[in-house]
Amino acid sequence: MLHIMTIRKAETPVSMEGQILDAARSCVLEFGVRRTTLAEIARRAGVSRPTVYRRWPDIRAVVADLMTREIAAAVPAMDSTRPARAQLVDAACDVAHQISTHPMFVTILKFDQDLFGTYVFDRLGTSQKAGIAIVEATILVGQTEGSVRQGNARHIATMMLLIVQSVVQSARMVRPEIEGDDMLAELRHAIDSYLAPVR
Amino acid sequence: MLHIMTIRKAETPVSMEGQILDAARSCVLEFGVRRTTLAEIARRAGVSRPTVYRRWPDIRAVVADLMTREIAAAVPAMDSTRPARAQLVDAACDVAHQISTHPMFVTILKFDQDLFGTYVFDRLGTSQKAGIAIVEATILVGQTEGSVRQGNARHIATMMLLIVQSVVQSARMVRPEIEGDDMLAELRHAIDSYLAPVR
Repeated sequence: MLHIMTIRKAETPVSMEGQILDAARSCVLEFGVRRTTLAEIARRAGVSRPTVYRRWPDIRAVVADLMTREIAAAVPAMDSTRPARAQLVDAACDVAHQISTHPMFVTILKFDQDLFGTYVFDRLGTSQKAGIAIVEATILVGQTEGSVRQGNARHIATMMLLIVQSVVQSARMVRPEIEGDDMLAELRHAIDSYLAPVR
Repeated sequence: MLHIMTIRKAETPVSMEGQILDAARSCVLEFGVRRTTLAEIARRAGVSRPTVYRRWPDIRAVVADLMTREIAAAVPAMDSTRPARAQLVDAACDVAHQISTHPMFVTILKFDQDLFGTYVFDRLGTSQKAGIAIVEATILVGQTEGSVRQGNARHIATMMLLIVQSVVQSARMVRPEIEGDDMLAELRHAIDSYLAPVR
């Protein structure tokens, strides 16, 4: 899927939906979510307001889809020739780094926490469910080849999501104690040791 | 400190402040934070309104102190005769269990997420700073005795806080995937393997 997305980005014209989401991203970066309007998104995308309203009822819905798209773009392609645990550890650190430093997520985490809070406190979003599914599948491969410890793969995948997400969402909070490469090194150790076969 | 608190609870009369925080807790449990007023807290505590206002400017401030008190009460006493890593793993699981099932935190996490969000997205609160300090000190003991891996103890303590906290704050979100004892078992494995000396 990621491969397909990359091809689409490079070779085919951006879809109407992609155009609108691009416009939404530029609005969020400039104004924050609260001061972004569907009208301004339509204007920047060069489409009519009804074209936007037909797809999304409100700003929150547009931003939810925009977050899903940006997260998907931040997920690295897995190299399935490597051991599953190494793939998972690298992917976890890559995603955490990409999203922690992504201007749109930095803005949302600072100014529009309620949008993010849904996916901390309430319910799993599209990207989180997809993330758990991909990680679970990779864990199953790792359990077969012996690079990942035994145990309920779904449970392990969910705990791994929580660990990675905590580093992303609380990056600003823990900055006085740890940040940047030091934070990623601890994340790497946490995920690798959590997945490693039991001694 | 916990030892002192236990003694106070059992043998000495509750302080004025304790009485007011007890009243605040009963209000939060009954009405949620949003519909709790300082006037109702004063009434239930049997004190005048100015007595409350003199100590806390608003409901958020009362609830912040109340959360600090309830978290402190949930922290188990450490048994320093055991290896540091075992102490840390048990304490992490105990605290996570206590707070995840604490009626007041369940209410706040469901209905007043903005209160909790401060301590996920913005800044470390009193309990979190105290937690990092206690964990850091115990890690240093563990590094000396050999039960905890080498590394920056402050960084390790902060990452450990993030892992424990993620399980507490996102308990409701991940419930469709994992909950209760299964969640605590994964937390136990995550913390123990994260702290263990490197093979």
